[in-house]
Amino acid sequence: MRQSQLFTKTRREAPKDEISQNAQLLIRGGYIHKEMAGVYDLLPLGVKVIEKIRGIIREEMNVLGGQEVSLSVLQEPELWKKTDRWDDDKVDVWFKSEFKSGGAVGLAPTNEEPLAALLRNHVSSYRDLPKYIYQIQTKFRNELRAKSGIMRGREFLMKDMYSFTKTEEELDDFYAAVGVAYEKVFSRVGIGEQTYLTFASGGIFSKYSHEFQTVSTAGEDTIYIDAEKRIAINAEVLNDETLNMLGVNREDLAQAEAIEVANIFKLGTRYAEAVGLTYMTEDGKELPAIMGCYGIGLTRLMGTIVEVLCDDKGIIWPEAVAPFSIHLVEVSDDTEKKKFAADLYRDLVNAGIEVLYDDRELRAGEKFADSDLLGIPYRVIIGKTTSSDSIELVRRKDGDKRTVSREALLAGTYSV
Amino acid sequence: MRQSQLFTKTRREAPKDEISQNAQLLIRGGYIHKEMAGVYDLLPLGVKVIEKIRGIIREEMNVLGGQEVSLSVLQEPELWKKTDRWDDDKVDVWFKSEFKSGGAVGLAPTNEEPLAALLRNHVSSYRDLPKYIYQIQTKFRNELRAKSGIMRGREFLMKDMYSFTKTEEELDDFYAAVGVAYEKVFSRVGIGEQTYLTFASGGIFSKYSHEFQTVSTAGEDTIYIDAEKRIAINAEVLNDETLNMLGVNREDLAQAEAIEVANIFKLGTRYAEAVGLTYMTEDGKELPAIMGCYGIGLTRLMGTIVEVLCDDKGIIWPEAVAPFSIHLVEVSDDTEKKKFAADLYRDLVNAGIEVLYDDRELRAGEKFADSDLLGIPYRVIIGKTTSSDSIELVRRKDGDKRTVSREALLAGTYSV
Repeated sequence: MRQSQLFTKTRREAPKDEISQNAQLLIRGGYIHKEMAGVYDLLPLGVKVIEKIRGIIREEMNVLGGQEVSLSVLQEPELWKKTDRWDDDKVDVWFKSEFKSGGAVGLAPTNEEPLAALLRNHVSSYRDLPKYIYQIQTKFRNELRAKSGIMRGREFLMKDMYSFTKTEEELDDFYAAVGVAYEKVFSRVGIGEQTYLTFASGGIFSKYSHEFQTVSTAGEDTIYIDAEKRIAINAEVLNDETLNMLGVNREDLAQAEAIEVANIFKLGTRYAEAVGLTYMTEDGKELPAIMGCYGIGLTRLMGTIVEVLCDDKGIIWPEAVAPFSIHLVEVSDDTEKKKFAADLYRDLVNAGIEVLYDDRELRAGEKFADSDLLGIPYRVIIGKTTSSDSIELVRRKDGDKRTVSREALLAGTYSV
Repeated sequence: MRQSQLFTKTRREAPKDEISQNAQLLIRGGYIHKEMAGVYDLLPLGVKVIEKIRGIIREEMNVLGGQEVSLSVLQEPELWKKTDRWDDDKVDVWFKSEFKSGGAVGLAPTNEEPLAALLRNHVSSYRDLPKYIYQIQTKFRNELRAKSGIMRGREFLMKDMYSFTKTEEELDDFYAAVGVAYEKVFSRVGIGEQTYLTFASGGIFSKYSHEFQTVSTAGEDTIYIDAEKRIAINAEVLNDETLNMLGVNREDLAQAEAIEVANIFKLGTRYAEAVGLTYMTEDGKELPAIMGCYGIGLTRLMGTIVEVLCDDKGIIWPEAVAPFSIHLVEVSDDTEKKKFAADLYRDLVNAGIEVLYDDRELRAGEKFADSDLLGIPYRVIIGKTTSSDSIELVRRKDGDKRTVSREALLAGTYSV
């Protein structure tokens, strides 16, 4: 894309009421726009990053055997009263409204009830289970405070998956498989090293749940890391029992602030029982399905990547989620070099490489500052001394500079 | 995908409260689930169809130079009071709620105000215009009645595009280009022939707006068609002035019921003036941007395709939006034929062809009835007499039967 065509502009300053680093950088780069506390619009560059993240998560969920749905946000009270989750005293993040035709309606903060209820039409026998169902959907939560930028939104994009199994063994197997898939997701989006499988408090059904926590001073949680074992314990369950179970010594643990980027949770039969989702076993017994739930916030993940990888000049996108692979920056007044840049842009695009082409009439210093802020992995600079054999390539994450040939760029072999 | 794995099952009957044909068929086929009147979930097959439609619309919007965003659903009153569209007496489809932290919040029924407001950060000079911005987003409208299945939802997926131009000429050019792009969209999704550019009432800024209306008895609008000129007039503007302007004779018009699948609308400077979106002209004057808006409902489009193309056996998907290209139906108890089917399935998938493989243990009659209901364009039947040289292929839309070779299927040359 030609940067002169992009409707967003970078900004020197984020709005004064924005205190979180991730949102400040994303707003300054033109990735997002702040509508109000906890509510952000995605602008074209932000849409591109989220689509990359969505693609990675979708792939990994499909590998797990997940089937994608898209459930409605609007919810009627009846179903949620069955699980005692309609009352604001029980679930305190509902947005509620009224139908013009009469009756209360709420915005789903999560989807256990409606999904279990709809499965009653599709599950009757043991042959119909297990099933794994996910969606990537906008969620609404009426948070009292929302000061963490796009990491705790009142409106946010989330992948929520639900498992429906016959036995606890089946649940355990899938639960473990999701853990592995999540590790792959975080590794693919570039924060694998900083992210720990973390033991956290469970519910009625199981003593523990598991979170994936990414170490960052912007985090709202405190965790204790055993670096060697690559596991962590949430402060809420840091006690002798947990340490014994994990075979971890208190003195090996390092305290850190961390961002919860995902959680996985065993739910048992609570929801299935309440809404009447049962199946017939092979020997003719009627049993409720056992459920598990597995969440990753996509917008939160985008914010986390920014928090964890940025430097004082701006964002640093890992290649897999960057809006573009190459930032082609033309910094010459020479007509011939301008043509060289335009031709290279055309040929890169035709070679299937995603390029943002800074063809704007600006000083080189301004262009480089913008390029640092935007954080595209590779910057290709077309200046006075550029030739087909010698093109300057700068890697954003460490400033590494090399000269490459036009041929190497087009062949995509620059990324080393 | 193996049909035995798909979590949805077909149903003989739709819920009794569902009176619209499109929703009845889509529910029976397991494409959607009805949560309540005007609110539907997309199930895996429905997600696949919507993703195809989304891809086509996205492509055509990008060709127009559109840049994709995703604006927030949550909206605060202040901005909408500037255009006098917050009051329920002015806009009667708001869902409104309250923040836990205090203050009213509404669910955006449309997005002129927030988009114009956010552009103030990015538009200052004539050089920054024109710009064309779109999103594909879930919208909420508090409809008093919602009896048309997924064609008039209280929650629905919509593509809304907005143009920001300097002059009326620029607006006219883009407006015309959108008309052409929309014709392409409707032609690509398979309802081009039944869909007419229709003159409808305008607003303050222009006498007419334009709709795309698809002829169907399920439609809520009445239009008058000049079949030869391939244009139509909405009943609301059928008068001598309109006829004269279009050079159309009343006696050449045929009345029809139709579904409004899209509309395009010139908005003038009303919104830009109200929210303060201005730019500096080349000669130093400050002027408000001129806006246009351009909508297509994706879920409505899915419902329209079903309404218009179905027969008494079920849905008939055009190839471009079908959830799968081939429905591979195995109807033999013979182990060798079962292996033939499984191998063919594997090879088709490896050849990049989208296949639903009915590997369920059911009678042939039940499988064929399901296949008719699901409406996948081509059915490949693996039965007693099947061999590599002779595989039965049935086209869903007209029942055309042929025998093709395994090779032809894998080469994708069956679609004629």
